Amino acid sequence: MQLVKIEDIRDAAERIRHAVVHTPLLPCPWADPDRPLWLKPESLQPIGAFKLRGATNAIARLSESARARGVVAYSSGNHAQAVAYAARAVGVKASIVMPDVTPQVKIDRTREYGAEVVLVPIAERESAAEEIVERTGAVLIPPFDHPDIIAGQGTAGLEIGTDLPDVELVLIPVSGGGLASGIGTAIRALCPNAAVFGVEPELAGDARESLLAGSLVDWPIEDRARTVADGLRSQPSELTFAHLRTVLDGIVTVGEDQIRSAMAVLARKGRLVVEPSGAVGLAAYLDHAAELPVGRTVVVVSGGNVDPALLADVLGQRDSGSRQ
Amino acid sequence: MQLVKIEDIRDAAERIRHAVVHTPLLPCPWADPDRPLWLKPESLQPIGAFKLRGATNAIARLSESARARGVVAYSSGNHAQAVAYAARAVGVKASIVMPDVTPQVKIDRTREYGAEVVLVPIAERESAAEEIVERTGAVLIPPFDHPDIIAGQGTAGLEIGTDLPDVELVLIPVSGGGLASGIGTAIRALCPNAAVFGVEPELAGDARESLLAGSLVDWPIEDRARTVADGLRSQPSELTFAHLRTVLDGIVTVGEDQIRSAMAVLARKGRLVVEPSGAVGLAAYLDHAAELPVGRTVVVVSGGNVDPALLADVLGQRDSGSRQ
Repeated sequence: MQLVKIEDIRDAAERIRHAVVHTPLLPCPWADPDRPLWLKPESLQPIGAFKLRGATNAIARLSESARARGVVAYSSGNHAQAVAYAARAVGVKASIVMPDVTPQVKIDRTREYGAEVVLVPIAERESAAEEIVERTGAVLIPPFDHPDIIAGQGTAGLEIGTDLPDVELVLIPVSGGGLASGIGTAIRALCPNAAVFGVEPELAGDARESLLAGSLVDWPIEDRARTVADGLRSQPSELTFAHLRTVLDGIVTVGEDQIRSAMAVLARKGRLVVEPSGAVGLAAYLDHAAELPVGRTVVVVSGGNVDPALLADVLGQRDSGSRQ
Repeated sequence: MQLVKIEDIRDAAERIRHAVVHTPLLPCPWADPDRPLWLKPESLQPIGAFKLRGATNAIARLSESARARGVVAYSSGNHAQAVAYAARAVGVKASIVMPDVTPQVKIDRTREYGAEVVLVPIAERESAAEEIVERTGAVLIPPFDHPDIIAGQGTAGLEIGTDLPDVELVLIPVSGGGLASGIGTAIRALCPNAAVFGVEPELAGDARESLLAGSLVDWPIEDRARTVADGLRSQPSELTFAHLRTVLDGIVTVGEDQIRSAMAVLARKGRLVVEPSGAVGLAAYLDHAAELPVGRTVVVVSGGNVDPALLADVLGQRDSGSRQ
């Protein structure tokens, strides 16, 4: 199997640089001094998540005739917004198949970016997308299972390695594994001495189990759907798993309360609005230090599309005196 | 009166570049298409506000003997944290005089940065700081009334002018006027065709009244203290006012509800935790379009040190169904 190389990521970076934000590394003076911490806030991309990198790269690689037929995607949210936004930016029609349990804020945003949204039961999203492809000739932009997507997501790692070449540990959320595959590939190439760890919710810890087993382990979608981190309910493909085995030093799993608590810390001390999926890296840093190497750490904050009521609730928890 | 020049700002940028974040310009796809919008999130500086720029520059300019005696500052919050953080970064002792009405989060953070905090009634803060200077020989780092502070704050404008040279309008919060003086000076030099507007709360609209009158108009501190924007309760000095008259095209004032509403939009759509003072620029963009030129707009989001209970409250307002 052909893995994505650092050259693919460099090419992707050149291709997408006018469409995505080079997000800064934010130093955290409140962190453990023995483990200096920087946040990589991909939540600040125009669509609120790193997914814009991969989608923009994948659409940029399409032929003219493919673009004329349009693109299709299925997604629990951020990939949907990414494809909708990236397609509109180059005048391409986008149809997005979304699970009917998707938070309303993500459905609304996707429509605002000009895409047609098709709501289906979560188990039918792949088949519904395939039906549109067959009927219209549109090109499917997969959420993670494609080298162009992995290379696009990897541009975030290229930025980390360029901006902080002496980084010693990078923590990356893992769901389908596109982000961790891409960033891990970039960090391995640019910072060979750095450790690269994935982070998953315990309730969707399939990738960790797969990594320990040495082959893909399937968790029922009903199990993975239990976590509050609605962006981390996918599981790796053969392609991303091959990358993860090569580039990750390990995967840490975090609890639901730890995710919520990390969201609150990111808002209070990081001044960032972060969705549950985007907070798992900080949860690992804060609550699983014993499982991680010590040193200069970058936590990738993957997205910020959170229901405001959930954020308000998380913020209120430790202020119960003033809220209730 | 000698005004700060673009060369002073360029020198400051070189001096402070390892200590501050070059904040990105964040494109806002949800903005009015006729007035494309970028946010300049100074809330993402390590201390949560632009004030780190000026404080770092001012302390970097001190002599060795001055540094050995330490520094003093009086501030309603963000300048305090900035001086504490910048002083510790270079091993200088800091004493911070704060009004006893300062939000607890700002007092705690300032102490966490290693500074000694002295709480006094708001009207006594200047005299208390002067007493420390006389007693210890420490150097006062003023919040805005000094060319080194103005030049430091101006580095944010240098970044705007470099990153978006065809900007057409820049909106900047005005309190003591250091930020608007510095950014305005940089924009005038780099982007001579851009308009530069200050923004104040109506309840602390002294700078607007002064600009219209052509000389400084004094508002009682009791009046200025009414606004929720606790970082915008100062008023310009002769030095900053001389800059504001030169570099501003005007000042817009915004209402309290508009400020709260802009905070909610910044959290929901900008994924940024912003304090009330940091939201006035967006409030002007959203609710005072008729008073502003049309075109590519940068809103300076000056700070993010907000009481979490206030943020949760603002987020809950438009979600009352799910919160109450």
